[in-house]
Amino acid sequence: MAAARTLRIGLIPGDGIGREVIPAGRRVLEALPASLNLKFSFVDLDAGFETFKRTGSALPDKTVEILKKECDGALFGAVSSPSTKVAGYSSPIVALRKKLDLYANVRPVKTTAGHSTGKPIDMVIVRENTEDLYVKEERTEETPNGKVAEAIKRISEKASSRISTIAGEIALRRQKIRDVAPGSSFRTSPMVTITHKSNVLSQTDGLFRETARKALAAERFSSVEVEEQIVDSMVYKLFRQPEYYDVIVAPNLYGDILSDGAAALVGSLGLVPSANVGDGFAIGEPCHGSAPDIEGKGIANPIATLRSVALMLEFLGEEQAAAKIYTAVDANLDEARFLSPDLGGKATTQQVLDDVLKRL
Amino acid sequence: MAAARTLRIGLIPGDGIGREVIPAGRRVLEALPASLNLKFSFVDLDAGFETFKRTGSALPDKTVEILKKECDGALFGAVSSPSTKVAGYSSPIVALRKKLDLYANVRPVKTTAGHSTGKPIDMVIVRENTEDLYVKEERTEETPNGKVAEAIKRISEKASSRISTIAGEIALRRQKIRDVAPGSSFRTSPMVTITHKSNVLSQTDGLFRETARKALAAERFSSVEVEEQIVDSMVYKLFRQPEYYDVIVAPNLYGDILSDGAAALVGSLGLVPSANVGDGFAIGEPCHGSAPDIEGKGIANPIATLRSVALMLEFLGEEQAAAKIYTAVDANLDEARFLSPDLGGKATTQQVLDDVLKRL
Ligand SMILES: CC(C)[C@H](C(=O)O)[C@@H](O)C(=O)O
Ligand SMILES: CC(C)[C@H](C(=O)O)[C@@H](O)C(=O)O
Repeated sequence: MAAARTLRIGLIPGDGIGREVIPAGRRVLEALPASLNLKFSFVDLDAGFETFKRTGSALPDKTVEILKKECDGALFGAVSSPSTKVAGYSSPIVALRKKLDLYANVRPVKTTAGHSTGKPIDMVIVRENTEDLYVKEERTEETPNGKVAEAIKRISEKASSRISTIAGEIALRRQKIRDVAPGSSFRTSPMVTITHKSNVLSQTDGLFRETARKALAAERFSSVEVEEQIVDSMVYKLFRQPEYYDVIVAPNLYGDILSDGAAALVGSLGLVPSANVGDGFAIGEPCHGSAPDIEGKGIANPIATLRSVALMLEFLGEEQAAAKIYTAVDANLDEARFLSPDLGGKATTQQVLDDVLKRL
Repeated sequence: MAAARTLRIGLIPGDGIGREVIPAGRRVLEALPASLNLKFSFVDLDAGFETFKRTGSALPDKTVEILKKECDGALFGAVSSPSTKVAGYSSPIVALRKKLDLYANVRPVKTTAGHSTGKPIDMVIVRENTEDLYVKEERTEETPNGKVAEAIKRISEKASSRISTIAGEIALRRQKIRDVAPGSSFRTSPMVTITHKSNVLSQTDGLFRETARKALAAERFSSVEVEEQIVDSMVYKLFRQPEYYDVIVAPNLYGDILSDGAAALVGSLGLVPSANVGDGFAIGEPCHGSAPDIEGKGIANPIATLRSVALMLEFLGEEQAAAKIYTAVDANLDEARFLSPDLGGKATTQQVLDDVLKRL
């Protein structure tokens, strides 16, 4: 037998329920069957608003350094946003995405056969993760009429092309899985929908649109249908016809908004994973926030984190291990015996986790 | 009897189904009962992509001039967006909002007692209408790594304060109507939800948030509950809990997106009106687009336009006339005998209009 591959994973629980779900993510990695020939080592890392209050930095240099030098991937929980402006504080996950050049934020949203609140959904939102308004270049001026603040929205050909290519590749990969396991989805062909607002932002979103069109016109994407949707219509159609969509590619901010919208359609943000993906590195991150209302109660839904673990593994090339976790999670949802309160159940984080582990 | 008030209304059908619904808007004004002591005169005005193709300008100076000099209000249909970039073309409605300083875009979204596809909804989105990314200040640079485009997002204290004050006033006005007619809504108290993304955009959206908080803390809004929601969560909650919301105030782009999201919840964009409101001037505008797929078939839903007419009248101080139209429209929907295809019915634009006119 070949030597086991060992992956070193940084664990960044962050704030609030991040501290309750990230340990569940670690557990599922530890519980993967030995037959996969995969080993994991872990390193605990700091980031978040609590870290900021303690150290004056929401993302200590050491965290970034260890991720860069030692780790193959990481899991990020959630961070609290201060309820009023706090000088010097800025979101560590946004900074992390930039510092590690994690240029794609991949957010699959799907219903399972047995667990659905409405229409069947099986889509993935591929969100550009480094630019747009997230460059956070802002300034404020005092004028005779009061303050005026400006922010830069930056869209580059390079980032738009890169993210669109990834979207195309994800569409192809999803189709390959469907071809192998035709029962695994109600979808039958690959499609990428380009989202933008080029009717108002002709240069920035126009560049995104044009570049995406060009990238997706490449020969290897010839089997992928390509269409586009203006962002406001996209939200409308997402809600009216979610079953229509396969892969949605969008600039950073629209991707942020669309993924929350899609999450609402499957019943809970507690189900939706994401991966922040760069070349050879991936951070799994549940889409939900730090949820101060349920913090400390032990009832946070760990599913989004477990799926984020699987997604991270996928992008680290461990598709078999990922598939194991997806299947176990889907079975938990389909049986619907151990569901957390956000899904109308009564199970604790631990009980949901145990039920998934038992199915691995 | 006092002399009748005469209002001069500019009619700007624009493109596509705009040309089918704006005539319906005119008809409902002409059909208002004489007892209201209101008269109307009309002037046909050009704007839109067709106008651009014909004249080289999507918004001829003459249209703006006549609106400014002669008119009390206007109705705007819809404009087509060219499917590829067209040099020199830019959206006439965005320009109109700025040129006439129509600083508030008011978009009520509600279900009627009898016509609802899900949860009861009675909210209004109050969208800032002059700045944010809609200032359209963009530039593109060629770099060694390809093109890089930038757009300015501008948020001013002045515009943020003005729009928040209007949101508060609308919340109070809605409550007054509910107090007089308690059966008219399931809502029982006024609330304003401030939407922003200040966790990323601390200066621009931070300024919006802070200014809105300040404006809504004014003594006369003491009965109005004020809360806030980050825009991605806002879309999530809008889909999950639409019945919770009363008045939502948002910067321009978020308001654009949220109003399409809310429209999806009531079953069709064809139901949702808007008014572009400035000091002493209002343009009614259905929220839907030019709908090239159904153009020329005579089946466009006129309801969004009829409600936009009512909304325009409200902001011109003619609340009684507005109420007449709202009541007739609600009765049409509740009876559900003459519904257009977007609502699952078979009625033509003309049949829906006739049914509403008969109830005036
Ligand atoms: C917390 C916040 C900065 C973040 C974002 O806007 O990207 C979050 O909403 C997300 O989607 O991961
Ligand atoms: C057509 C477009 C420029 C416009 C906007 O973005 O404001 C439309 O979507 C709207 O909501 O009125």
